Amino acid sequence: MRYRLLIDTDDTKGLVYNISKILFEYALNIDQNTEFVDKLSNKFFMRTEFTGKIEKSKLLSDICAVLPTNHTISLKTDEKKNIVILASKESHVLGDLLIRYESGELQANIKAVISDHTETQDLVGKFGIPFFHIPTALHTREQHEKLISTAIDQFDPQIIVLAKYMRILTPNIVKTYRHKLLNIHHSFLPAFIGANPYDMAYSRGVKVIGATAHYVTDDLDEGPIVCQDVIHIDHTYSSSDMSKAGKNVEKIVLSDALNLLLEDKVMVHNNKTVIL
Amino acid sequence: MRYRLLIDTDDTKGLVYNISKILFEYALNIDQNTEFVDKLSNKFFMRTEFTGKIEKSKLLSDICAVLPTNHTISLKTDEKKNIVILASKESHVLGDLLIRYESGELQANIKAVISDHTETQDLVGKFGIPFFHIPTALHTREQHEKLISTAIDQFDPQIIVLAKYMRILTPNIVKTYRHKLLNIHHSFLPAFIGANPYDMAYSRGVKVIGATAHYVTDDLDEGPIVCQDVIHIDHTYSSSDMSKAGKNVEKIVLSDALNLLLEDKVMVHNNKTVIL
Amino acid sequence: MRYRLLIDTDDTKGLVYNISKILFEYALNIDQNTEFVDKLSNKFFMRTEFTGKIEKSKLLSDICAVLPTNHTISLKTDEKKNIVILASKESHVLGDLLIRYESGELQANIKAVISDHTETQDLVGKFGIPFFHIPTALHTREQHEKLISTAIDQFDPQIIVLAKYMRILTPNIVKTYRHKLLNIHHSFLPAFIGANPYDMAYSRGVKVIGATAHYVTDDLDEGPIVCQDVIHIDHTYSSSDMSKAGKNVEKIVLSDALNLLLEDKVMVHNNKTVIL
Amino acid sequence: MRYRLLIDTDDTKGLVYNISKILFEYALNIDQNTEFVDKLSNKFFMRTEFTGKIEKSKLLSDICAVLPTNHTISLKTDEKKNIVILASKESHVLGDLLIRYESGELQANIKAVISDHTETQDLVGKFGIPFFHIPTALHTREQHEKLISTAIDQFDPQIIVLAKYMRILTPNIVKTYRHKLLNIHHSFLPAFIGANPYDMAYSRGVKVIGATAHYVTDDLDEGPIVCQDVIHIDHTYSSSDMSKAGKNVEKIVLSDALNLLLEDKVMVHNNKTVIL
Repeated sequence: MRYRLLIDTDDTKGLVYNISKILFEYALNIDQNTEFVDKLSNKFFMRTEFTGKIEKSKLLSDICAVLPTNHTISLKTDEKKNIVILASKESHVLGDLLIRYESGELQANIKAVISDHTETQDLVGKFGIPFFHIPTALHTREQHEKLISTAIDQFDPQIIVLAKYMRILTPNIVKTYRHKLLNIHHSFLPAFIGANPYDMAYSRGVKVIGATAHYVTDDLDEGPIVCQDVIHIDHTYSSSDMSKAGKNVEKIVLSDALNLLLEDKVMVHNNKTVIL
Repeated sequence: MRYRLLIDTDDTKGLVYNISKILFEYALNIDQNTEFVDKLSNKFFMRTEFTGKIEKSKLLSDICAVLPTNHTISLKTDEKKNIVILASKESHVLGDLLIRYESGELQANIKAVISDHTETQDLVGKFGIPFFHIPTALHTREQHEKLISTAIDQFDPQIIVLAKYMRILTPNIVKTYRHKLLNIHHSFLPAFIGANPYDMAYSRGVKVIGATAHYVTDDLDEGPIVCQDVIHIDHTYSSSDMSKAGKNVEKIVLSDALNLLLEDKVMVHNNKTVIL
Repeated sequence: MRYRLLIDTDDTKGLVYNISKILFEYALNIDQNTEFVDKLSNKFFMRTEFTGKIEKSKLLSDICAVLPTNHTISLKTDEKKNIVILASKESHVLGDLLIRYESGELQANIKAVISDHTETQDLVGKFGIPFFHIPTALHTREQHEKLISTAIDQFDPQIIVLAKYMRILTPNIVKTYRHKLLNIHHSFLPAFIGANPYDMAYSRGVKVIGATAHYVTDDLDEGPIVCQDVIHIDHTYSSSDMSKAGKNVEKIVLSDALNLLLEDKVMVHNNKTVIL
Repeated sequence: MRYRLLIDTDDTKGLVYNISKILFEYALNIDQNTEFVDKLSNKFFMRTEFTGKIEKSKLLSDICAVLPTNHTISLKTDEKKNIVILASKESHVLGDLLIRYESGELQANIKAVISDHTETQDLVGKFGIPFFHIPTALHTREQHEKLISTAIDQFDPQIIVLAKYMRILTPNIVKTYRHKLLNIHHSFLPAFIGANPYDMAYSRGVKVIGATAHYVTDDLDEGPIVCQDVIHIDHTYSSSDMSKAGKNVEKIVLSDALNLLLEDKVMVHNNKTVIL
């Protein structure tokens, strides 16, 4: 079985030596090893991919023994993760995830799609994935989120992807799924936070538009950024042309970010991501 | 001689026909012709490059006769434009312009470099270009700008390039040189307006950094954008690494924008640029 | 109804004037107009989008009357074009087209998918599109192509998209569907022509990989290029990693090229494309 | 003092452990550490940046003791390297290097510029760098290269940069300066090898043009690639327009590659580069 060891700890001398000593003693086959030291905060990050036969808890406790007190460690396998997708009316990002899923590009099981609208129901149905329509009418915001939450929890997903889900989540749900909510925003953040970024981009007369995949936090569009990219536009683009042209970059930025999460390559630190 | 005809007018039926009729009757050789209609504001923009023998004022009045009342028209030649550069301490953008000038890449005469510091004096001297050191000490802001203005006016430049000039211009000077001031800002605007954009980019944890060349207006970093571009970075970049890596994109975005201005390809409309 | 007028002719003075005169006299609403003169070959290209009520044949004959003898002219509407897709085993490019079709991104009717394999049959079925499996076994190459041809002809498609169709077409079929066959090749042509470009890219140690959408001609991978793009890679990429990473660029380059064809923006000249 | 340790060896279990053990015992401060295992050839590559007080030969022999027999190891400091530049008539790439040198962007001492022409002599003179004009007339190819070689050897450069040097080097000189010759070629290799790549790009009708920085070997434009990049063009670009537009990408690709060499980040393996 293939494992991914993730360590996030205060930096101290000899960490690589001490950790690699243990991995060596366990006779593991290291396939990939990446470290990063953030000098400003004196933090050490490490991701190691290895194969071998291990007793997980024993390996972890052996490594913990050589780390400074203040650390986080996790050991994951490369099994497919369960994910749940939240969507609204727009189908392009959702559809792109579905077709990548179908072709085996995603190392994930899409367990369900939840939407506050019905526009994407038929599309989701084609792929044999459960679709939950949870309309907002007749519910308070809290009630609506409670229903969403209940639907999500049936599947115990490691990642919840907001594929153009157009409602702002409350602090409560953000807290419940901390570091599990991945959103795609259709601008190069921090520019054009909030609703209708293409309209804002049009008004400002920018020459690039973009998309940003980020973790959701309580501050709208201000969570840790995982991926972002831009495309060039010119004066002939209306806001609606930008919206069309931006679809490709939205799709790719989100699926790139999702792949990084699925491969356990993303660690969060100081509202930023370290990608190893 | 090669001419560039620029028209900016209310849109109305038959404009292309009426204008091309006149150009045809003058027997001009059209080398390039581009039009753009902004439907929201009902504005028509046209740029035509042609060669031929003309009486300038007659051609202009003939064309004006077929345009709606509310129009702007100009006829330029492809003679090198005079430019003046404003700089501060940093030399990379200035140096890049100088070396492009030296190699004949710029269709411009750099008449002078004006700086509030002396760091770039030797560099400018190598290229035989007059250097004016106008320090800020002992002067009020208004006095300082008056001195800058006086220095600029000796050369009657068509374009004034702010090559990392680190002082904010007053409304007075902005008004004097309206649509002549081209600035480079080291972020993808409208993100990170103002001082130290790389520090802000570092704090936000963005995965791209960029540069924007724009006309200067009274609102800091909010003038019409001419060019912008980005490069990808990752978590290993400190603010200072961003500053180093960003130099290339600053240089290229500014020189691309300057070339567009030198070729009379940029028209300003609603605080945006139409580039034909 | 919206029309697209395409003209390809020897260049001569007054063409824009003469053509715009006719469009003006018909009182058409010009939405977009682009011209290009290829000076080396003295050819004039023009694409005009307009709305208005016209008698098509009369407008065409009026315009022909002002063009040099040696010209090509066509007038198309913005009705959705019929397309047929050829595929083999791989599903990612095909799937991407299907999902864009489903979401309404393509101005096209996908009439059928034809494949020499069955791997994509279920996928195509989800979208309710006829799937033709035409295996190569038991047939000569000519017989196989005859069967393909017969399947295509039922739908009279304006464009035939080779979405990773892995067989080389014979001159006969290339001739039959001249300027209708759009292929995606997974390299930045002219590098790595033929089979297994990612293996070749790996061997050469390139730092970019790419994709090229081009018209099919008798010379393998040497037809007129419509779109191409690249992504950056590094020494850690195996040939198989390149193949995974290249999927996005293959998808986007092909769908961008297809959109250009669907909008009648591509003209072919001297084994190159003029895109207006 | 800051050191860079480079190891290239057969892969074997425990390498990271064994090497990091020694670095730990020397109490060095590891600033950056990167490893790569090429599984196909079973090769291990490592680059470690550290500071600390060491006896160089002792550290090296201690590390060698834990490496497989078949290895290469080197320990470099971050002192500025000496470089010599070869140029011909064109000045844009040379000028870009000179201006970066002047602004302190290059961690290098440019000791001399050698050219078979005189066009760049004045430019080089501005920067106070020795210029050697070694014309080809009156010399056989071997004699000419002998003179070049003699000029180079005065400065004992670690890197020789071919900044658009337009002559093909003989196997003899290539052998003498093995892994020291860095060339910039104005195409995305392996496309358009040899003379006049922009003319070939024009004929082929490509939609991107590019540049490649590579080590020089006996096979023309087939040495290990260090960096490459492209820009988008369209049908309006003549070969000469491509040549102008390509200048930026030529400059940046070469200076990026040179910076990698100056930071000892490039290792050569199987006619490819591993960049750590």
